[in-house]
Amino acid sequence: MSGTTTTGRHFLQIPGPTNVPDRVLRAMAAPTIDHRGPEFAALGLEVLQAVKPVFGTAQPVVIYPASGTGAWEAALTNTLSPGDTVLAFETGHFATLWQEMATRLGLRVEFVPGDWRHGADPQAAQERLAADTAHEIKAVMVVHNETSTGVTSRVPEIRAALDAADHPALLLVDTISSLGSIDYRHDEWGVDVTVAGSQKGLMLPPGLSFNAISEKALQASKTAGLPRSFWDWQPILAANERGFFPYTPATNLLYALREALQMLDDEGLANVYARHTRHAEATRAAVRGWGLEVLALDEREYSGSLTAIWMPDGGADAVREVILREYDMSLGAGLGKLVDKVFRIGHLGHFNDLTLVGTLGGVQMGLVRAGVKVDPNGIQAALERLQQA
Amino acid sequence: MSGTTTTGRHFLQIPGPTNVPDRVLRAMAAPTIDHRGPEFAALGLEVLQAVKPVFGTAQPVVIYPASGTGAWEAALTNTLSPGDTVLAFETGHFATLWQEMATRLGLRVEFVPGDWRHGADPQAAQERLAADTAHEIKAVMVVHNETSTGVTSRVPEIRAALDAADHPALLLVDTISSLGSIDYRHDEWGVDVTVAGSQKGLMLPPGLSFNAISEKALQASKTAGLPRSFWDWQPILAANERGFFPYTPATNLLYALREALQMLDDEGLANVYARHTRHAEATRAAVRGWGLEVLALDEREYSGSLTAIWMPDGGADAVREVILREYDMSLGAGLGKLVDKVFRIGHLGHFNDLTLVGTLGGVQMGLVRAGVKVDPNGIQAALERLQQA
Amino acid sequence: MSGTTTTGRHFLQIPGPTNVPDRVLRAMAAPTIDHRGPEFAALGLEVLQAVKPVFGTAQPVVIYPASGTGAWEAALTNTLSPGDTVLAFETGHFATLWQEMATRLGLRVEFVPGDWRHGADPQAAQERLAADTAHEIKAVMVVHNETSTGVTSRVPEIRAALDAADHPALLLVDTISSLGSIDYRHDEWGVDVTVAGSQKGLMLPPGLSFNAISEKALQASKTAGLPRSFWDWQPILAANERGFFPYTPATNLLYALREALQMLDDEGLANVYARHTRHAEATRAAVRGWGLEVLALDEREYSGSLTAIWMPDGGADAVREVILREYDMSLGAGLGKLVDKVFRIGHLGHFNDLTLVGTLGGVQMGLVRAGVKVDPNGIQAALERLQQA
Amino acid sequence: MSGTTTTGRHFLQIPGPTNVPDRVLRAMAAPTIDHRGPEFAALGLEVLQAVKPVFGTAQPVVIYPASGTGAWEAALTNTLSPGDTVLAFETGHFATLWQEMATRLGLRVEFVPGDWRHGADPQAAQERLAADTAHEIKAVMVVHNETSTGVTSRVPEIRAALDAADHPALLLVDTISSLGSIDYRHDEWGVDVTVAGSQKGLMLPPGLSFNAISEKALQASKTAGLPRSFWDWQPILAANERGFFPYTPATNLLYALREALQMLDDEGLANVYARHTRHAEATRAAVRGWGLEVLALDEREYSGSLTAIWMPDGGADAVREVILREYDMSLGAGLGKLVDKVFRIGHLGHFNDLTLVGTLGGVQMGLVRAGVKVDPNGIQAALERLQQA
Repeated sequence: MSGTTTTGRHFLQIPGPTNVPDRVLRAMAAPTIDHRGPEFAALGLEVLQAVKPVFGTAQPVVIYPASGTGAWEAALTNTLSPGDTVLAFETGHFATLWQEMATRLGLRVEFVPGDWRHGADPQAAQERLAADTAHEIKAVMVVHNETSTGVTSRVPEIRAALDAADHPALLLVDTISSLGSIDYRHDEWGVDVTVAGSQKGLMLPPGLSFNAISEKALQASKTAGLPRSFWDWQPILAANERGFFPYTPATNLLYALREALQMLDDEGLANVYARHTRHAEATRAAVRGWGLEVLALDEREYSGSLTAIWMPDGGADAVREVILREYDMSLGAGLGKLVDKVFRIGHLGHFNDLTLVGTLGGVQMGLVRAGVKVDPNGIQAALERLQQA
Repeated sequence: MSGTTTTGRHFLQIPGPTNVPDRVLRAMAAPTIDHRGPEFAALGLEVLQAVKPVFGTAQPVVIYPASGTGAWEAALTNTLSPGDTVLAFETGHFATLWQEMATRLGLRVEFVPGDWRHGADPQAAQERLAADTAHEIKAVMVVHNETSTGVTSRVPEIRAALDAADHPALLLVDTISSLGSIDYRHDEWGVDVTVAGSQKGLMLPPGLSFNAISEKALQASKTAGLPRSFWDWQPILAANERGFFPYTPATNLLYALREALQMLDDEGLANVYARHTRHAEATRAAVRGWGLEVLALDEREYSGSLTAIWMPDGGADAVREVILREYDMSLGAGLGKLVDKVFRIGHLGHFNDLTLVGTLGGVQMGLVRAGVKVDPNGIQAALERLQQA
Repeated sequence: MSGTTTTGRHFLQIPGPTNVPDRVLRAMAAPTIDHRGPEFAALGLEVLQAVKPVFGTAQPVVIYPASGTGAWEAALTNTLSPGDTVLAFETGHFATLWQEMATRLGLRVEFVPGDWRHGADPQAAQERLAADTAHEIKAVMVVHNETSTGVTSRVPEIRAALDAADHPALLLVDTISSLGSIDYRHDEWGVDVTVAGSQKGLMLPPGLSFNAISEKALQASKTAGLPRSFWDWQPILAANERGFFPYTPATNLLYALREALQMLDDEGLANVYARHTRHAEATRAAVRGWGLEVLALDEREYSGSLTAIWMPDGGADAVREVILREYDMSLGAGLGKLVDKVFRIGHLGHFNDLTLVGTLGGVQMGLVRAGVKVDPNGIQAALERLQQA
Repeated sequence: MSGTTTTGRHFLQIPGPTNVPDRVLRAMAAPTIDHRGPEFAALGLEVLQAVKPVFGTAQPVVIYPASGTGAWEAALTNTLSPGDTVLAFETGHFATLWQEMATRLGLRVEFVPGDWRHGADPQAAQERLAADTAHEIKAVMVVHNETSTGVTSRVPEIRAALDAADHPALLLVDTISSLGSIDYRHDEWGVDVTVAGSQKGLMLPPGLSFNAISEKALQASKTAGLPRSFWDWQPILAANERGFFPYTPATNLLYALREALQMLDDEGLANVYARHTRHAEATRAAVRGWGLEVLALDEREYSGSLTAIWMPDGGADAVREVILREYDMSLGAGLGKLVDKVFRIGHLGHFNDLTLVGTLGGVQMGLVRAGVKVDPNGIQAALERLQQA
């Protein structure tokens, strides 16, 4: 063992939770305040407003003191009724889990099969929606950025498919690993519920999750028959008017959210997205430089927040283990169908060029030490991309 | 204005969230780690074990990345089916909210009326249970310490009522404002699901909640028909075996939990409970010294974690406002039926004699400044109690 | 033992170090930066400017990465030459230590005797200075607020004594336990070197100290013959022009200083001073209420930052021990001639009414438990003072 | 501009202050305690003992609440008298500053000239000492690791020179940028005073400094005639017996010290030194890979804690500026004679392989962007070294 594993900062390069900025951690460590007092109200109003631009929305955003899986459940229970049909796409592990949740909650799921190397297929969506003349499909569920594969679905084209079929189904989008990292526009793209979590592009610890809600979704919630209480939008939206919450909010994570939103605003969202794109490009340059393959097959669907490296003959877990043991870096494992066949590099959140260089250097060294044949020029290919202004 | 509102530490003397210890805040501010890695597994196993003594249980405790209201929902959805009857007691605002949730989730609630100055009535429970020879009542819901009134229900006597009636209903107990403050014994008292939150006696920020689960409750969950996914015990218990969680846990709050459990263990739970009892006694001594009345009427039901002061002619909110403005102390408002008729002093969590003296001094000065007639000997009565060894 | 010693916040009521505000501690915990880079320069320029109002000066203030004792040495070595005579006043323990340092550094000290219950005597000063027609006295050393006694010397009257005698001696003033707590005016009062530390009214941890420097002192430093290097003003002032320091500064304490200065500015220095005065008055009301005596004899010299309680027959240490053990509060011990004959209550820095009430309640209970005969009305006398707007 | 400068962690790769570990920053943020109380005494005794192994000593180590420059002054004023002769070696900027301080304090300095690319010359030392038959030289001053050049002097050979000449001069060694990074043995090497600071290998913020003291140095202090008070060892050593200090210590930095010493002990000093050697080797591999030159000329004197890169035709400052602006990394500038002719990479303290890779990648990219001709294989050469077990 190299001895390096016990010193210096851990490289947390899974695709979330991401490296939380020091100043966000310090903001979170402020004393908890009375969630019914005037100081809290000011905090509540501030973050409820400041979070909107990140979603690309002027409509309400609900904040849950819960992890992202909860916000998945909230999106479904607030808008749908037992037995409703939803259309989903097998883009990977998380898309699979979300539709399993839908089934468990009493919905009927049509799950369009996929190869886990592409995003949701707009063509298939359009065909299925056009065929649904009875409008039995009540919602279309799309994972914007599939965290298990590094493939970003083209949400605007799914929207176009709904529009082309003149279909009234709601569009529900999971942006858990894209929000704050990859360009996203809740309003412009006509999304009805956007689901997000705190621990990825928002640079917070896990524990907060979000629903951005269109007017159409709000209307749907008035008749949606799935039982709900904790997740119910209505009392939350009512209390939010004055900056409060119907039950105790995760106050300290809201401090962290305020700080992180300030950081995103200081950098500028356009710069944030460009930075993620740039780091994704440099990562793919390294992968190709090593002579390896990126899992995503369609370049229009390359993810800006993570890259999955394709090892079809297995061995990805051994690479990750070597890297964790020898270089103190955590990478994402292959999940579901992809167990041991990919490892995933997160390059999202609070991140910069030199941390990416360290990350890619660690991957290269780990591949070598794990006995994977790679061209050592990979790292230089990344540097060349990063040397560009 | 006194100018004091802008300096020194705020006195957060609501009955939760409580004053989070500095060392817990610092523990929480450690960098977030990979929730799938070996370091996390060790953390998970440690806290899942260490939390049990606080519940007085050797059975599993589920930890949710959510606030206490979520754990209420979890207790119901994991054990009950649509249309099931539950028996609840109107002990105050939170008991009322919990049974409203039950109704909203599709349960049938029998709500035993109460005067908000007593706990759940064991006699009424026994009569109702004895009458239910068909065993239509599937669960009995009790709030151990009613945060809105400062009344602690005698859970062992409710258990005895179930036993006397030989009734198979589950016993579900909310300990949100008692756990870690008032003696509580999940196993010994035969409770089936104990609901708790992080932000009171556990001395954490809000954002974690708990279900301690009896074997009988676990069995019930196998046939319980309420839809559930996020709250479902089974995948959580399965993942917990190795220290993991089925979805992203609130990692940094788990750091805080580890630290707070260490503090409770260092002090010793018996000492923790005795301390709360002592502070509650000193507080009541002050209340009586001022010539005022405690809301709780039955001395067997005095709360160790908070004291509500009864102002039947109103004016409690004005007192709180003066105290917040002039002495930078937050107190609890009257809720529901008690709006403006009580204010509540939280004396739980990370707390000591001198902070209590400051708290009671602030209440006395605030009462005077708000024009309430009080005997200024109140503070001395508290000191006399605290002077005792 | 009461069990309270292991929980809640410690009451640090010594007359410094004082209770450091949470936000100052968090500011201090930001990552250390390059002390030669542009971000540091901005920090340096900001604090060097922002610290001036607290001294009441528009002239340079030198910041040392050292404790206050170092700033004592700096004041002497930068302005005086071996064998020079200085005039000092025996106001207490720290005045005694400072003149001992002067002797050790090779100066000749005239030490005007005192009873440790009064400040520096302006009358004696004037007589001695008038008699010194040869101007052998090169500097007059005054401790503004004697931390060992709670007596505040009347610096303007010492200045007047110098002026009346038309004497050119420098006026060196120690404000270690007054700066940021008690009204002080370096420029208006014609002080030549003001010595200060970080850990009292400035609300920082120990580790920074200060010299505010008049033009006359700067001129003196050009010919002052005491050897000096680390303490030498000249290279510091030169580097400070651009926000830098000649050797590595205590960067993280400068973060803390920036935050604390912001807090003082937010409260307003006039409010800060009034708050300290008010708390000192309430403390003396309690002392008298108990039937005890304040050490300071001249009401013009009562300290706003601490109060020493006079127990001429001894026993003060036993009181402090009981209070530390039973109520987890640290008080200041009697020092030098006053060992066991006083204990000192610090009521300075980040402090407010309710913390003072807790402090005084703790003192009252401790006195009772230590067997000192006191009237329990003391606490109420303090509350009465604090009830006033 | 790349936009990367506003996100992610800054790379602080100057040769100190170094990257302070998060856990040290959090330890430092604990509330300040009474420096005269029992809790402090335990802290004091603990750190005074735990710091000794890092110096390789069983003799006393004095801790100053001051920066390293102060400890330089302490080493001189405690052991020497006005007019005493000291022998020093021109190894670089800091050696030059230290002997300037000696002159300023009234000592006579013999300064052996050097080329700033070698350490102190043992041969020259031996010759000069042998010639000093009158033993006019009272102390030999050596900078162990010259921070301005990345050259480590061979202290044992200087000791041997003293021994060979049978010369009684004290051996004073500055280990400011080597302690805790490069193998060092105060006792074994017969050093009399070792000077150190907190902000390099000890991984703390600046603000503490140290003197490790031999018995011979202690004896010398009894007759040493330079005036001293703040720096005087005697009252410090006396108070240290019970864990206290004669004046207010930098309490929060002592918390940090306790934490950092624990980290060094956990890693093991031998591992710490080996890690630094390994990172220095990888850095030199990169430098040579780029086709550039390391400033240090003698491979026995390569520094484990920093590497200076030699750009004899200038331009080093432009490289640093590009790197700071484009890659948010701080590097050390050339100092004194080396202005603009070197830049220095710090690879010491809390550091690991991947952070080094990021650092070297940033240097490579910065060199390219600054227009310096380099072979891009440099980074791979470093990876090859780090790939080795």
